Amino acid sequence: MRTQVVIIGGGPSGLLLSQLLLKAGIESVVLERKTRAYVLSRIRAGILEQGMVGLMREAGVSARMDAEGFVHDGTLLATENTTFRIDFARHTGTSVMVYGQTEVTRDLYDAREAAGGAIVYETEGVTIHDPKTDAPYVTYVTGGTEHRIDCDYIAGCDGFHGVSRGTIPASVRREYEKVYPFGWLGILSETPPVDDELIYASSERGFALCSMRNAHLSRYYVQCPLTDTPEDWSDDAFWDELKRRIPEEAAERLVTGPSIERSIAPLRSFVTEPMQWGRLFLCGDAAHIVPPTGAKGLNTAASDIHYLYHALRDHYLDGSEEGIARYSERALARVWKAERFSWWMTTLLHHFPDQTPFDLKMQQAELAFLRDNEAAQKAMAENYVGLPY
Amino acid sequence: MRTQVVIIGGGPSGLLLSQLLLKAGIESVVLERKTRAYVLSRIRAGILEQGMVGLMREAGVSARMDAEGFVHDGTLLATENTTFRIDFARHTGTSVMVYGQTEVTRDLYDAREAAGGAIVYETEGVTIHDPKTDAPYVTYVTGGTEHRIDCDYIAGCDGFHGVSRGTIPASVRREYEKVYPFGWLGILSETPPVDDELIYASSERGFALCSMRNAHLSRYYVQCPLTDTPEDWSDDAFWDELKRRIPEEAAERLVTGPSIERSIAPLRSFVTEPMQWGRLFLCGDAAHIVPPTGAKGLNTAASDIHYLYHALRDHYLDGSEEGIARYSERALARVWKAERFSWWMTTLLHHFPDQTPFDLKMQQAELAFLRDNEAAQKAMAENYVGLPY
Repeated sequence: MRTQVVIIGGGPSGLLLSQLLLKAGIESVVLERKTRAYVLSRIRAGILEQGMVGLMREAGVSARMDAEGFVHDGTLLATENTTFRIDFARHTGTSVMVYGQTEVTRDLYDAREAAGGAIVYETEGVTIHDPKTDAPYVTYVTGGTEHRIDCDYIAGCDGFHGVSRGTIPASVRREYEKVYPFGWLGILSETPPVDDELIYASSERGFALCSMRNAHLSRYYVQCPLTDTPEDWSDDAFWDELKRRIPEEAAERLVTGPSIERSIAPLRSFVTEPMQWGRLFLCGDAAHIVPPTGAKGLNTAASDIHYLYHALRDHYLDGSEEGIARYSERALARVWKAERFSWWMTTLLHHFPDQTPFDLKMQQAELAFLRDNEAAQKAMAENYVGLPY
Repeated sequence: MRTQVVIIGGGPSGLLLSQLLLKAGIESVVLERKTRAYVLSRIRAGILEQGMVGLMREAGVSARMDAEGFVHDGTLLATENTTFRIDFARHTGTSVMVYGQTEVTRDLYDAREAAGGAIVYETEGVTIHDPKTDAPYVTYVTGGTEHRIDCDYIAGCDGFHGVSRGTIPASVRREYEKVYPFGWLGILSETPPVDDELIYASSERGFALCSMRNAHLSRYYVQCPLTDTPEDWSDDAFWDELKRRIPEEAAERLVTGPSIERSIAPLRSFVTEPMQWGRLFLCGDAAHIVPPTGAKGLNTAASDIHYLYHALRDHYLDGSEEGIARYSERALARVWKAERFSWWMTTLLHHFPDQTPFDLKMQQAELAFLRDNEAAQKAMAENYVGLPY
């Protein structure tokens, strides 16, 4: 078999790329290690930057997002003493879209399947061959049979644990990492969200986040020790802790209920350089991880897809190689900005076990400065809604 | 002897307060541990915020500053790859004044002495008595004789090692500190400054700063290990190291020459709370230290003097006690903002011995964001020229 672009990984990045390429008349095949149902069972973030929203529209898969997504013009930041709002609309003239990653992925699957686009599920032993030559190919096994696809380019959209990054020799890669000394315990609950907007709460007991998927489905998080397991936390214990960390007036109107999902995620910053090796391009979690604070994970993957999609378009449609040659440089420039923002927001809002009283005062002073200073709010708003591609 | 306000410490803070009080018709006596010549031999920073400039004018001691000081409308930031400018004038409509702290102090002494204002030099054994009562007094020894001054209020402007802070019982004080793992080796040289504006340079070899006192007197610094002594550095070694850390085009036009002063200063952030205990008020270094990055030391002392001067004016002239009651709260609110800015700028620009490759990337990303983002530049400019009192 032969195609133009093999996309390894059927998560939102790979699917979005395949749909964009389809619209441009470029062939691709998506290889996914799991089933569609499995991919859709993964709970992920739900805040889309304008850039991601634009890509969904360009890919022709935005109908449900545009109908059901919630536009957020701002977000709330809360400390022990004060709650204030970062007004995205006023500072940037734009907004973010609340629409769950699971929904994004579902819409992309539906569109992909409606278009008859190739997705191969339950692929095993995916191997990338000869990416530094003009004739790369990918082999994989399904149902015990080995297959081979020859191609022009390979997009590694297979996440942090996928094969793509490891295909680049360790001698070529430079990796950067920071592991934060805490996790996020998150629950999903069929209750109305406590607020129309997100509340990021910094408390001496630790960070908390009030988020949502829609008007009837809330997503809440509390910072917890990495040694905790979800079983250590009853629903009641979760709600009690959440209430202690958010502003009193929010705690009073919080509607609680049974959790329908409960899990703990570690927080990590990670980047590998370069993001390209010959005809192999890394996208999204395959190349970089951000802590969830500020919701940059999916959006930064989308930024990679933007650069790769345009590079491939320019190659196939205009015969220009510049986008291909500069993919890693362009993608990384924006990745590092998102890494910085996520790291800053994480550092600003969480309680750190080894934090000195001076460090705590610096957090409080930075939050006070942000509350009082228009320019600082504008800088934050610009990052939150997404810096330009 | 009796006066209204005893000012302990004849550095710029104490002298400025005494001159402002004189203008308002409020009596004060300044007690200085050293001689005038000794105080004037101390080399300190030379960047004045508008607030400090305004206080010098209000105190009637600005003639020479206004004639000889240099207005700086911006500053340069340099990294390995790029040099960019923070435009104070455009972002804030104002500027800073380059005028050495030594000159400020000299002008204040001259004015104080011309007005016949009391300064007692070479005081020993200064002791603050009964500051929590309505009848505080201060005792001290000169030439072997003990003296006593009864007063209404005491301003502790006697620096980090003075007696004032220690007069507040340890059980009442809460102290916050961060010691940075490096120092600044500074030289003063009778050479023309390399640039019209300051250059703050971040390099993998460490931080460097090109500053000046006037058109013929330059002040340069390089970050160095705390274990170094000034004797470890020849002038040639200093100039060589400086040239490696600043932009190439600046290194090429740098005029070198013999140093006329060479010293190493440690970098520390320190704040004590509260800044008031009964009728004793702490001002400047007696209550807080900032690392020199961003030049907030003298300016934050001036901010304290602003709040204390207005509190005393309101008490003596209008009979209002609010300024007195809220001195610590008001002074500290601004102190913490200056502490945050100095800490941020220090953290942004220095090489830290325990810095991971990820940490270094965060510095680079933050500098790149500052270079590219107007709002971030505005937030920095507003801090640099001085947040409003």
